[in-house]
Amino acid sequence: MTWHVTGLHHVAVAAGEDRTGERLFAALLGSPVHTEEGDGFTERMYEAGGPYLQTLQAGDEGVVRRFVDKRGPGLHHVAFVVDRLDDALADLDSRGVALIDRAPRPGGMGTRVAFLHPSAAGGVLIELVEDPEGGADG
Amino acid sequence: MTWHVTGLHHVAVAAGEDRTGERLFAALLGSPVHTEEGDGFTERMYEAGGPYLQTLQAGDEGVVRRFVDKRGPGLHHVAFVVDRLDDALADLDSRGVALIDRAPRPGGMGTRVAFLHPSAAGGVLIELVEDPEGGADG
Repeated sequence: MTWHVTGLHHVAVAAGEDRTGERLFAALLGSPVHTEEGDGFTERMYEAGGPYLQTLQAGDEGVVRRFVDKRGPGLHHVAFVVDRLDDALADLDSRGVALIDRAPRPGGMGTRVAFLHPSAAGGVLIELVEDPEGGADG
Repeated sequence: MTWHVTGLHHVAVAAGEDRTGERLFAALLGSPVHTEEGDGFTERMYEAGGPYLQTLQAGDEGVVRRFVDKRGPGLHHVAFVVDRLDDALADLDSRGVALIDRAPRPGGMGTRVAFLHPSAAGGVLIELVEDPEGGADG
């Protein structure tokens, strides 16, 4: 079970109705290069020299809405690229790392993703991303 | 005043006494490539394929300790590389973007840095980094 983190895929920001963040990210990084509807949120990807800055705009309900209502808008999670996601999950699980997703599920932009539990990383929600196209070289 | 964001420099995580995050980041990214004492915190840099994952371990007092006491451990800020930091700050200020630092100050690893106010970015604390050595290619 050899697997590696090969880079940083994205940093995600959760937002409610306020668009201040979107305006600043566009000023810093240019317009979003990708927009996609998720389950209860709209996802926008801004390119940051390899990795992405991802914004998650909360809909009326769902995990992003609950996060924003509870913690306020702000940084939500960080995502790393791994070369072999199934092997990574099996290995981390065998080492006692708490997982949210024990099996990969579809992510944005055609990726396969899985989340680790924040308790495994000192309060940080971590996503692992396997990108079939090797999209993030960061 | 032409300036550009050229990449993502690091994502920072704040922690108190709990070392769970450090252990997981080391498992994912390898040992820290740099450690430095800051003003009230210890900073460790883990390489993530160009950008860094930075941990800020709070000391007894200071901004990191106050953050951890108030919000709990977790994601703290995101840092972008800019090519001309002085021009970036003057330009953003002229456009009404709220700044914490109106002038650059010394950052870790020999960089010059400045923070924008979280109110400028939908609750996200953003750092701009000018790296004289072009250290982060992310």
